[in-house]
Amino acid sequence: MKHSINNIAIVGGTHGNELTGIALLQRWAENPAEIQRAGIEVSTLLANPRAFAHNVRYIDNDLNRRFSAQDLQDIALGTYEEARAQAINAQLGPKGDAPKTDFIFDLHTTTSNMGITLVLLSNDPMHLDLVAYIQMQMPECKIFTYILEQDESNYLCSVARHSGLIIEVGPTPQGVLRPDIFEQTRRALVAGMDFFELWNKDQLPELPKTLVGYDFIEKVHFPLDAQGKRCGMIHPALQDQDYQPLNPGDPLFMLFDGSTVTYQGAETCYPCFVNEAAYYDQAHAMSFMRKVELSR
Amino acid sequence: MKHSINNIAIVGGTHGNELTGIALLQRWAENPAEIQRAGIEVSTLLANPRAFAHNVRYIDNDLNRRFSAQDLQDIALGTYEEARAQAINAQLGPKGDAPKTDFIFDLHTTTSNMGITLVLLSNDPMHLDLVAYIQMQMPECKIFTYILEQDESNYLCSVARHSGLIIEVGPTPQGVLRPDIFEQTRRALVAGMDFFELWNKDQLPELPKTLVGYDFIEKVHFPLDAQGKRCGMIHPALQDQDYQPLNPGDPLFMLFDGSTVTYQGAETCYPCFVNEAAYYDQAHAMSFMRKVELSR
Repeated sequence: MKHSINNIAIVGGTHGNELTGIALLQRWAENPAEIQRAGIEVSTLLANPRAFAHNVRYIDNDLNRRFSAQDLQDIALGTYEEARAQAINAQLGPKGDAPKTDFIFDLHTTTSNMGITLVLLSNDPMHLDLVAYIQMQMPECKIFTYILEQDESNYLCSVARHSGLIIEVGPTPQGVLRPDIFEQTRRALVAGMDFFELWNKDQLPELPKTLVGYDFIEKVHFPLDAQGKRCGMIHPALQDQDYQPLNPGDPLFMLFDGSTVTYQGAETCYPCFVNEAAYYDQAHAMSFMRKVELSR
Repeated sequence: MKHSINNIAIVGGTHGNELTGIALLQRWAENPAEIQRAGIEVSTLLANPRAFAHNVRYIDNDLNRRFSAQDLQDIALGTYEEARAQAINAQLGPKGDAPKTDFIFDLHTTTSNMGITLVLLSNDPMHLDLVAYIQMQMPECKIFTYILEQDESNYLCSVARHSGLIIEVGPTPQGVLRPDIFEQTRRALVAGMDFFELWNKDQLPELPKTLVGYDFIEKVHFPLDAQGKRCGMIHPALQDQDYQPLNPGDPLFMLFDGSTVTYQGAETCYPCFVNEAAYYDQAHAMSFMRKVELSR
């Protein structure tokens, strides 16, 4: 028996320097028809207004890691983002306990050349149908799978009844609003809203039985010298090659002295989040992904 | 009578989140031969280490506007960047009074699609020869003219005997080190060092008699709604089109409601710094430039 999705929240500015979602909220405040659908209550939220005002990802710590069930209950936690997470949970949740919101779309950007990435957080039939439907409208979409139990998730999306969808679009610098990224994000979100109208009415078109996904394997870090100082960067042959195959022996890093570090793994993998600005503080250069088939 | 250039400083990190120059300083610390030339003493400087540590453009105010002769003398000024400017002036200058440094290269990046831009700060024969020589090695270089008397300049470069050169390369996000931008900047700087060796020996090749430059006309601001709130972005047809002709009637901005604002000027101009992240706080969307012929 299908659940009907009657209450959706569209969230932008979970990271304050990702301007695309925030500009879209402004568009929809003035042109709400684009996100309204029969039988669905839709609301919008600028998640981290203080980080937006300061043009930074966050003030104290990453808002999109503050939504574990435990942290949401712990009133001793008092950073700006911890407080904001509890306030958002009160407004859109409460997580795990008859939340007011059925589903959350969370709009993000990346400096990596990842195009339109749909971060699939659940492999239940509805979430698979959702990404299949969006990809049918926008075949260029990539499906990045990061499946986890909702009560284990610390993402903002997880306060709703269902796992939700992160729409991650790039490349764009932080602190910049690019019209192409704005338009791609807008189209993906509109397709997502169309999906739920059709889902509720049981009028979905026939969707493909299998999808291609990219499943997270591991984080890869920048090379360090003997003193622990970063001594290299993404190799020119790998820059902007997100979701392209990386084979054993292929170039991975170029050191500042001009020498090359190659990929030493045993099997082909698919890098993404290549050279993402937000991960520099963790010296995280990219993620390795495995190409997988998702069956509906 | 030509001046010999015997003391050059290469500066990176004047803006702390422009990582390319800073990584090049690290390269040259380990591989100094690339920047050493017979008869020239060369030094390097990370200009704003605290902004670099915080991954921001500046801590209190823009370091590259703190070098007016008056501000450098005023010990009452006490922001981090004001103090740092006075310290740099003591080390590389003093400005206007037999400075220890003959010439400064200052390495910058931009989020705009400006390729390799040489910011020409003086139209004296040596500076014109310098950009002509670099452009001969790298024909893709653009020459952005911003001619001003050295004692009127508040740029870091101005503390040396000569006006200096800003090398501005993009597009790259702030807080990201892209290998292509690193390599373009490296090649432009190496050509600049080669130039001074040849200049001192009077062995320059024949250089073109005229150059194409782009001369600053005015700053253009993002559109605002009746409440003074930003309500649009760079038009998709203009994004990434730095140094391309913009004709009367061409699209300039796309408003969040989807409508277009066109260019209403009387004559063709050439936008640059289109959608530069560092100018968002001033709502400065781009600069209009005039294409000019520079004669040597």
